[in-house]
Amino acid sequence: MNREHIKLSLEKDSFKKELGERAESVNKWLSKYLIPESAFPELIHKAIAYTVTNGGKRIRPILLLEGARLANLAQENAAPFACAVELIHTYSLVHDDLPAMDDDDLRRGKPTCHIVYGEAIAILAGDGLLTYAFELMSSLENQMKLDNKCMLQAINEIAKSAGSMGMIGGQVIDLEAEGKEIDFDLLKKIHDLKTGCLFKGSLRAGAILGGMSADKLMALDSYAENFGLAFQITDDILDVTGDEMLLGKTIGSDIAKQKSTYATLLGIDNAKARARECIDSCMQSLCTFGSEADFLRNLAQYLLVRDN
Amino acid sequence: MNREHIKLSLEKDSFKKELGERAESVNKWLSKYLIPESAFPELIHKAIAYTVTNGGKRIRPILLLEGARLANLAQENAAPFACAVELIHTYSLVHDDLPAMDDDDLRRGKPTCHIVYGEAIAILAGDGLLTYAFELMSSLENQMKLDNKCMLQAINEIAKSAGSMGMIGGQVIDLEAEGKEIDFDLLKKIHDLKTGCLFKGSLRAGAILGGMSADKLMALDSYAENFGLAFQITDDILDVTGDEMLLGKTIGSDIAKQKSTYATLLGIDNAKARARECIDSCMQSLCTFGSEADFLRNLAQYLLVRDN
Repeated sequence: MNREHIKLSLEKDSFKKELGERAESVNKWLSKYLIPESAFPELIHKAIAYTVTNGGKRIRPILLLEGARLANLAQENAAPFACAVELIHTYSLVHDDLPAMDDDDLRRGKPTCHIVYGEAIAILAGDGLLTYAFELMSSLENQMKLDNKCMLQAINEIAKSAGSMGMIGGQVIDLEAEGKEIDFDLLKKIHDLKTGCLFKGSLRAGAILGGMSADKLMALDSYAENFGLAFQITDDILDVTGDEMLLGKTIGSDIAKQKSTYATLLGIDNAKARARECIDSCMQSLCTFGSEADFLRNLAQYLLVRDN
Repeated sequence: MNREHIKLSLEKDSFKKELGERAESVNKWLSKYLIPESAFPELIHKAIAYTVTNGGKRIRPILLLEGARLANLAQENAAPFACAVELIHTYSLVHDDLPAMDDDDLRRGKPTCHIVYGEAIAILAGDGLLTYAFELMSSLENQMKLDNKCMLQAINEIAKSAGSMGMIGGQVIDLEAEGKEIDFDLLKKIHDLKTGCLFKGSLRAGAILGGMSADKLMALDSYAENFGLAFQITDDILDVTGDEMLLGKTIGSDIAKQKSTYATLLGIDNAKARARECIDSCMQSLCTFGSEADFLRNLAQYLLVRDN
């Protein structure tokens, strides 16, 4: 147990570095594929650029690109789809931060979009990000490089996971649960939809783009579901035990908002145990892939030791 | 001139009936393809159903279906795309009506979405409608019935026309122009983007789905651009001269809001003349189609005599 812990700690720094490099690649692709700030009307394209350069961890595009790699698809061919899932994630943050929703003035230490550009432009910037994600995925350039049926399946997968029975649905039940006592099952349902769906959709979409077989896709589904749960549990733990500087947000904000979290519902120790179980399940899901899936293995293990 | 006027008047009722029948077909397809109200989470699916059953004229889906018919594609195969453009139009109304945007409490005599369901759900219902439009277009069912490359091109066309350099961009410059004196060119730019782009994108998408040749597509582009302008000019005229009962909204609302319109900028007579010029251009654009395009011819002429 102790040695394993040391092993993980040793890997942590180099894996963190690798994650950072992958996030940097995503950032480069985002600069390549995003509509220029100077495009007419400038105001919305400035607002969009502002929200996209937010220092995010780029987990969804990293998952999509890894799904593509496991299906032997060149990274640059999957890149527009990777950018698309990040744009969808970004739009969801912009809309969630609005006064009528979570009413957040700051995100990762920066004023939120509606604080800088006003509510109307923030709503429209979100709409623009979401719409452009689909424009980007369906582009003529992609049509010439990728299997067209796979493209449609990947677009459909992403739309489903981001839709009213996926990510958006999660935000709806989260709003409905506000101020109410909720149990573990409802909390899990909220996070499965709000975060888990797009994680899973991203990983699947990359794999689908490369034409992965149905049985391997099912293995990735199982990985993604457990990854999503472990991600959220460790997120909730960090909100209690984390370092504000590393986290880039105020510690205890969930408690201050009287929000039920895995940490408050299970207690820190049980929550950690539950996260470990999920990560064990992640490992089991990946058996079919052999050492090819080491990045996904490391990514799951990293959740337990991450500090942001 | 007088005889032509009589001819138009005579045709008006039967064409109005045909338009109503086509709108009714669109409504049936919308009931078929929309996510059921009982789907989880119910709240957002109820809100979505509420906004979609709004008594709209269904012009965009009618244009899309007509584009498909001119390209010899069966109407039922184009129907999911027709529904998609109407869902996109609907989401844009839901978001435009929000307090942070145009702040409208009523639309076609019914309380707007945020009045009934609250702002947060209205924002999310709009997001859900937009996302579902792309899910619907990229569905497996369509993949099996339609040419996959044509589907991607149609999706791309619709995303572009609805995006931040199309419909959303139009709303941005409309907001920026609020309370300012604007000239004819800026007014035209606002409407070209806000309304014209999705009209054109709808007609084109239908034709693209059926594999229409590039030269015929260009002819439709020219029709759609002139149709869009004539539509907006006659809309502005109706705001001054229309019958509130038939129109379903308050007459003079643009003037009350001190909004520049084609009617205020050109005067009613010049505006009518300009609309007639556009409709003449519509007729010229359609030469290449022969009698096949009579519906589009009637649709353009109908703009001059419509009462809602």
